[in-house]
Amino acid sequence: MRAIQITEFGGPEVLRPADLPDPVPGPGDLLVEVERSGVNYADTHRVEDTYLSSSALPLVPGSEVVGRTPDGRRVVAMVESGGYAERAVAPAGMAVDIPDGVDAGTALALLVQGSTAWVLLRRNVHLAEGESVVVHAGAGGVGSIAVQLARTFGAGRVIATAGSADKRELALELGADAAVDSRAEDMTTALVEANEGRRVDAVLDMTGGRVTDESLRALAPFGRLAFYGMASREAPKPVQLPNLMRHSATVSGMWLPHAFQLPGDVVGRAMAEMFDLVRAGRLRAVLGGEYPLGEARRAHEDLRSRATRGKLVLDPTR
Amino acid sequence: MRAIQITEFGGPEVLRPADLPDPVPGPGDLLVEVERSGVNYADTHRVEDTYLSSSALPLVPGSEVVGRTPDGRRVVAMVESGGYAERAVAPAGMAVDIPDGVDAGTALALLVQGSTAWVLLRRNVHLAEGESVVVHAGAGGVGSIAVQLARTFGAGRVIATAGSADKRELALELGADAAVDSRAEDMTTALVEANEGRRVDAVLDMTGGRVTDESLRALAPFGRLAFYGMASREAPKPVQLPNLMRHSATVSGMWLPHAFQLPGDVVGRAMAEMFDLVRAGRLRAVLGGEYPLGEARRAHEDLRSRATRGKLVLDPTR
Repeated sequence: MRAIQITEFGGPEVLRPADLPDPVPGPGDLLVEVERSGVNYADTHRVEDTYLSSSALPLVPGSEVVGRTPDGRRVVAMVESGGYAERAVAPAGMAVDIPDGVDAGTALALLVQGSTAWVLLRRNVHLAEGESVVVHAGAGGVGSIAVQLARTFGAGRVIATAGSADKRELALELGADAAVDSRAEDMTTALVEANEGRRVDAVLDMTGGRVTDESLRALAPFGRLAFYGMASREAPKPVQLPNLMRHSATVSGMWLPHAFQLPGDVVGRAMAEMFDLVRAGRLRAVLGGEYPLGEARRAHEDLRSRATRGKLVLDPTR
Repeated sequence: MRAIQITEFGGPEVLRPADLPDPVPGPGDLLVEVERSGVNYADTHRVEDTYLSSSALPLVPGSEVVGRTPDGRRVVAMVESGGYAERAVAPAGMAVDIPDGVDAGTALALLVQGSTAWVLLRRNVHLAEGESVVVHAGAGGVGSIAVQLARTFGAGRVIATAGSADKRELALELGADAAVDSRAEDMTTALVEANEGRRVDAVLDMTGGRVTDESLRALAPFGRLAFYGMASREAPKPVQLPNLMRHSATVSGMWLPHAFQLPGDVVGRAMAEMFDLVRAGRLRAVLGGEYPLGEARRAHEDLRSRATRGKLVLDPTR
């Protein structure tokens, strides 16, 4: 089969087409005939070997695929590696059936970014009807879905942040009531102003550094901040528990792989609910373009240059 | 009217009976003919002037009363001060009607300790059916109710901690599945062992210091620790948000006065639910004895000596 394989770590230039034997599913695995592969920022770290966990060589990158199983199911699935290929192997527990009428790019956007947004809102901050919620990076992969889900879940006020005017415009189009410049000098004040003078009930944050510190100070009593990434690469200040008590505040961390292990098939239910919303026209993924499989290098170059917006996918049928 | 008034700060000896004019309710206040006044550990701090907020002299201590309003309602109410008296004034929003068949001591135990337990379980840790929950100080005022409520809310396993064999016995009688010595050398291991080898889903903690640190390390992915007091007077270690992310963990603080301000009359609904449980025989307050109003000094002495167990009340009709 055709695949992208790396035999040394490095930048996009190490992503080279290769002809490899088909992968062999183990017990409990599904063989997937890949329709589209998702490209994630984390993939660029894996290729550089700067990811949280280190990788062995040679490596076929790619952690998420859409495709058909031998018995005809169309699934979106997480894979440990091997996504950038014509065929991939996924653990059955990491595969979700896709209903008719949902395109591959959308299914890929919902699997990681969508599930993250859903779990943050439902399981971390437990957003209640009428509450205000801040979505940092509200035009990003997780943020663009979180803005729409918060609206659907009955949020009283959705406040997005983004670093450019066109991203703020996108967040407003997706349903945000207000859009704040993520480079605001004082994020506490900016968020309270965007919430019409009141402190906020919930914050979804993947920024870190002072944005997190200042967002915490914008929380109303019983407010919750969910922390799921540190794009600034700066740690927020440590949190003192007596301070949380004094303000009846909650801080919550989330790493998606844990959500797949929750009882009650939480991610499966999240996906089913989001697929229904997509089919009802109430949720859309922001799609950023398709590349033939052989042009994975260009996809990584574009992603790293930050010139793209929305979900990037590879097409192994081309 | 008869009351207890202090004209200087100090130990129990400054609590002296006095004859004072009746308090005058302002707009939106209720005049309450007091049936029983609750005695709280916080009162000892107010009398010493070592409370979070400082007090003005002269002061009639006491922050919670049960009694009748002029129009015949029987209510339990929080008051800013003035509870140790034959008559007290309460903001209407801080008064809850008591149904028939609930004694004054139980109503007083439910107002602060019961509401605290309810809010911690429902709003801080969002305890779900089948989950495991640790209740530190499980024989204490909040803990003894939290153990019973967790059972009622469908907890899979309730683990109490307490510092003496008879308190652990009480926690087991109230419905805990396991009782752990709160002086365990390694609380992480002790909790996991008490949970049959698994990490725990939720912890209610009012201890601080290493008990909090070690309890955090006992959390399962998506586990939540609610921090609502620091009886050890030692702060827990500060919490790093990237660590919360790595473990999908949540830490939450709670200070009850904020709960009274939540929309949807949260405390009122909590009290109604707990009153129903009391009448159905599924919830009981641990009562610790009644003192005539004039013996407030002895009540404080007994409380400070830690010889008492359960809710202490003053009887202004004696």
